[in-house]
Amino acid sequence: MSKVRIAAFSVSIDGFGAGPNQDLQNPLGLRGFELHGWFRPTELFKKMQGESGGTTGIDNEIAAQSFENVGAWILGRNMFGPVRGPWRDDSWKGWWGDNPPYHTPVFVLTHHARSPLTMEGGTTFHFVTDGLESALKQAKDAANGKDVRIGGGVSIIRQYMAAGQIDEMHLAMSPVLLGEGENLFSGINLAQLGFKPSRVVPGENATHVFIEKRERGKR
Amino acid sequence: MSKVRIAAFSVSIDGFGAGPNQDLQNPLGLRGFELHGWFRPTELFKKMQGESGGTTGIDNEIAAQSFENVGAWILGRNMFGPVRGPWRDDSWKGWWGDNPPYHTPVFVLTHHARSPLTMEGGTTFHFVTDGLESALKQAKDAANGKDVRIGGGVSIIRQYMAAGQIDEMHLAMSPVLLGEGENLFSGINLAQLGFKPSRVVPGENATHVFIEKRERGKR
Repeated sequence: MSKVRIAAFSVSIDGFGAGPNQDLQNPLGLRGFELHGWFRPTELFKKMQGESGGTTGIDNEIAAQSFENVGAWILGRNMFGPVRGPWRDDSWKGWWGDNPPYHTPVFVLTHHARSPLTMEGGTTFHFVTDGLESALKQAKDAANGKDVRIGGGVSIIRQYMAAGQIDEMHLAMSPVLLGEGENLFSGINLAQLGFKPSRVVPGENATHVFIEKRERGKR
Repeated sequence: MSKVRIAAFSVSIDGFGAGPNQDLQNPLGLRGFELHGWFRPTELFKKMQGESGGTTGIDNEIAAQSFENVGAWILGRNMFGPVRGPWRDDSWKGWWGDNPPYHTPVFVLTHHARSPLTMEGGTTFHFVTDGLESALKQAKDAANGKDVRIGGGVSIIRQYMAAGQIDEMHLAMSPVLLGEGENLFSGINLAQLGFKPSRVVPGENATHVFIEKRERGKR
């Protein structure tokens, strides 16, 4: 069955999914890159960077699983780039170079219309201006029976969680205290929304927590 | 060197150290007992309950370490009991029966004076009405070179953290989402206070995170 998933989403011990003050130099906010300390050494990440080598243990395996069976992605505007306000031109094409790691249709939520952007390797960025539900519907259609992965950032994930649209989450809890930034949990009652941890897998550099949504009565 | 420690303190994935609505039936608030799901099966906990058996793995070992070299404890009033307001009489002697698991002087922070209470096994409860600093000073004196352990609850720990008085913390992250209750991290910038994770140890039923306070410049 097709699922709406959050996967390999890194959070700090104190619950932050990004640091403060996101900009061109700090796509994940100040110190936010530390959240990915578990992902960067992996073979998968190296390969995405066009490099060889990298670790092949649990962190790498779980990172690879996060990309499996994904038919479409949804990203927030801030995760796509640091540009704010209307798109001045088409020069910004994402953080990821000519061949982004998605290889599927990617629906970018924004308030500002822009024509679809076709990249190498099967990634096409579609810019959705009519809201979360529309983006999810388009992503589900495009996924064609596969899963829809909500990539982030924190704000988009929180909105889809609160709307009851997420079926499962895999959080990579990094051994980091950020102290400030965008908190994933604050003000959202995940228990009340039906979420329950199903599995905890210790990786080399993060603790992987798998969370499922249970129907009422099945908890 | 004598330290002020938080140890074996259970938190949920979403950062709660207790559920809401603490009362006589729910000393840790609603669903709060689930936070201790890692501790209850251990040999140490069974022994504290006067029972035999229990697990002897990593969770048990780390729980045992949390009691080592502790010369005095500090507890908040709510952790000592559900009684609110002035002490009506001396009938409430804590949650733990005649022989509490402390076996040291225990300083209970309260707004309401009460005579010290000597229990079996070396535990004496002292009721401190003149604040956090006074309790810490008395506990350090009583600890006589050993560590002072801040037992909880969440409110007391947060106050000592914010005051810069904690040297190290061991949090047992339980595979539980509480969704509401007393959040350990909310509104406190642990990074700015100098805290940094030093070690993560996967236990059988919790992930043990050890956090140290680093002096500026040593980070």
